[in-house]
Amino acid sequence: MSLEDVVAGKRNEAGIAAVLGILKQQFGERFQTGDSIREQHAHTTTYLPAQWPDGVVFVETSDDVQSVVKVCAEHKVPVIAFGTGSSLEGQINAASGGISIDFSRMNRILEVNAEDLDCVVEPGVTREQLNEYLRDTGLFFPIDPGANASIGGMASTRASGTNAVRYGTMKDNVLSLTAVMADGREIRTARRARKSSAGYDLTRLLVGAEGTLGILTSITLRLQGIPEVIAGGVCGFPTLKDAADAVIMTIQLGIPVARIELVNATQVAACNAYSKLNLKVQPTLFVEFHGNEESVALQSRQFGEVVAEFGGGPFEWTVDPEERAKLWKARHNVYWAVKAMIPGYEALATDVCVPISKLAECVALTEADIEEHGLTAPIVGHAGDGNFHVSILFDDKKPEEIAKVEAFVARLNERALAMDGTCTGEHGIGQGKQAFLVAELGDTVDFMRQIKAAMDPHNILNPGKIFRLE
Amino acid sequence: MSLEDVVAGKRNEAGIAAVLGILKQQFGERFQTGDSIREQHAHTTTYLPAQWPDGVVFVETSDDVQSVVKVCAEHKVPVIAFGTGSSLEGQINAASGGISIDFSRMNRILEVNAEDLDCVVEPGVTREQLNEYLRDTGLFFPIDPGANASIGGMASTRASGTNAVRYGTMKDNVLSLTAVMADGREIRTARRARKSSAGYDLTRLLVGAEGTLGILTSITLRLQGIPEVIAGGVCGFPTLKDAADAVIMTIQLGIPVARIELVNATQVAACNAYSKLNLKVQPTLFVEFHGNEESVALQSRQFGEVVAEFGGGPFEWTVDPEERAKLWKARHNVYWAVKAMIPGYEALATDVCVPISKLAECVALTEADIEEHGLTAPIVGHAGDGNFHVSILFDDKKPEEIAKVEAFVARLNERALAMDGTCTGEHGIGQGKQAFLVAELGDTVDFMRQIKAAMDPHNILNPGKIFRLE
Repeated sequence: MSLEDVVAGKRNEAGIAAVLGILKQQFGERFQTGDSIREQHAHTTTYLPAQWPDGVVFVETSDDVQSVVKVCAEHKVPVIAFGTGSSLEGQINAASGGISIDFSRMNRILEVNAEDLDCVVEPGVTREQLNEYLRDTGLFFPIDPGANASIGGMASTRASGTNAVRYGTMKDNVLSLTAVMADGREIRTARRARKSSAGYDLTRLLVGAEGTLGILTSITLRLQGIPEVIAGGVCGFPTLKDAADAVIMTIQLGIPVARIELVNATQVAACNAYSKLNLKVQPTLFVEFHGNEESVALQSRQFGEVVAEFGGGPFEWTVDPEERAKLWKARHNVYWAVKAMIPGYEALATDVCVPISKLAECVALTEADIEEHGLTAPIVGHAGDGNFHVSILFDDKKPEEIAKVEAFVARLNERALAMDGTCTGEHGIGQGKQAFLVAELGDTVDFMRQIKAAMDPHNILNPGKIFRLE
Repeated sequence: MSLEDVVAGKRNEAGIAAVLGILKQQFGERFQTGDSIREQHAHTTTYLPAQWPDGVVFVETSDDVQSVVKVCAEHKVPVIAFGTGSSLEGQINAASGGISIDFSRMNRILEVNAEDLDCVVEPGVTREQLNEYLRDTGLFFPIDPGANASIGGMASTRASGTNAVRYGTMKDNVLSLTAVMADGREIRTARRARKSSAGYDLTRLLVGAEGTLGILTSITLRLQGIPEVIAGGVCGFPTLKDAADAVIMTIQLGIPVARIELVNATQVAACNAYSKLNLKVQPTLFVEFHGNEESVALQSRQFGEVVAEFGGGPFEWTVDPEERAKLWKARHNVYWAVKAMIPGYEALATDVCVPISKLAECVALTEADIEEHGLTAPIVGHAGDGNFHVSILFDDKKPEEIAKVEAFVARLNERALAMDGTCTGEHGIGQGKQAFLVAELGDTVDFMRQIKAAMDPHNILNPGKIFRLE
């Protein structure tokens, strides 16, 4: 399956024309069809071609969402939920045209249940907005994919990020959802209890479904107490393997590390240049511990012992917020640090995830591949999960460079799959990874198709994403 | 929907006769149709009427499972997976007859990947067998529902138990599954990576599906390092509310308690009598901490401060294995302690789960209900999850007592649902809770039916469980 096949979509012109007329009447100024708005709601964050929706509706309530879906269902026109547009695999492209539902105005925090450590939010709430809002309650929402993504988008791609090693991914932190389904009905997938054995886990089915099974209208999230003390630090290792082995032992010992990020030498150099750090250019771990004064001291000491055992260090840690912030800002800015390496070049950010015992080998082989093919492509990894990212720089004006990058991504995925890993730890499938999904799961994808066909018989919910039905 | 409607099933006599002949030929002595074997493979652990399968096949490989499913699919005959038979809501009853697949001989531990903290097991492996096997590796599998259930059964009912507050439920601890689907194909739902965003989460869809979407043939589980030190203790409180408030604060402070069990006064009295404890008869918490010497001391001290704040205690804790074992044995024996209260009576064990802020109120109202209706029904709860169990004693020879128990269970569920709780935290729906599932999730159940109808078009996989299709 070539990417061209994936992104090709049939348009239902008559249906689209009808829907445009009806939505204009129903939503007035809240329905927009101008080029710049449509462009903003297509995919722009990678080399994937942007595919504009035919119109964008700014919803304010779940009734609005139901109205849009009902109109689109009647006319068999695609509907694509839009949060902040920070997904990386073409998830919001309108391959067959249709209507983009913009959730930026559905950004209310509906409930905070401090005693239960949960909250209910609308899909347009962003991660940073939520944590800003929560600050005074002493609680926080730990999932941090880097981008200030919307909670709806994060749920839909099963996002995770730097804190996942301790707090899990969106799959672990969404307690319940409401969603408008393809027939326009709104359902709630679960109650607010922390666990349940009541029937099929539709919460987890919708988390990661990339808007293809239902359009989320609210999300109930688990929260955590803001740690009394946060300690952070950094330490280098002679080799990647030493760093990875230190990670494995840290996890095995049950040290409850909150973040443990592997940064390869190329990426360290890029961070030094961009974020004005002066780290030694070698494989490096960025770590963070959450707890109280005693527990972070204990964790840091235990971790320091592990580091020493694998020839790394010295491990220096601090509870000083400014020093920590500088470090993690550098970590979060890796994308920009990479882009700054060759100004004017595009950077393709891709991810795979392998069992952690295979992380060192997978990263080392990938580094060798990068060198062999003369690519510029630093690596950072959520090492505690076995998940790593490669940001490949290329000139997106040159088809031969695009082909070279695509070939590299294919090899990267084959390598991860051969190690019993997955083609994506946290970015999702979208349009970009459909061939790898089939390579990864084979017949299992048929059953995904069966579910999709049953729950969305006219294929109107974000069609063409994850897999093709036709 | 009355329970009579739920348990009524249509039999496909011609298909069943054909399948019996074919399986006898294919499996010889490994296929049994004698009464005592059939009786053992029907539901016997509650007052639900036992419904025998027509035959039992003792599978040894996933090829065997595929053979059975293919034969049954061709003749549209039900197949019901059987682990140890310890489910509580009629999950293994053969309401429409058919074939029970007994997994007791598919009990191999296929892989232990110590560095990755995971293992791959066949469905017939029991929880105790697995932990026995793992002991020398320094790892353990934490989910502990009390019964020595099979891993396949635990996955299928989304089981949890006393350790879930720290280690999560089966949903959190199953990394991947292989399963034979209704058309006889075997699929694998995910790779062994610790996280993935690759398509629909079929792992979580099959976990908790009670064998209605696929027959599990292997399960990849997350493991944990055996804690260096385990500390345990017990403390009483003046009121249920004080005990529950102590639990809420413990969770909010992020004290990583491994077990925190609420035992009501009636249950304390029963445990004293049965397990020869001499606890003061009052609402009591049983707790356990996992870590090293320093960290369990720290946790125990912090917890002791919380207990004191709510008028409980004194909190006494110990790392002595024998003292701890006695305590937890008493906790695990609550069912027998309850049964011993009125010899000859049946005990119905039921569970609900509410947001933890509602736990004290829900338990207190339930205690009042028990007293008002003259029932004998002690309560224990996985307090950190808001999940609690009521074991109701009754004379199963007296229809009016059964009716009284059923009415009580209905009120208990209504109460939990009114508090935004769920009708089952860990036992599942089976036959016993179908009416409550609809009350809990409404239209959401329609989408469960759509999924079932798409993935199992002839309704052969454990038909009549969770919901009725016809």
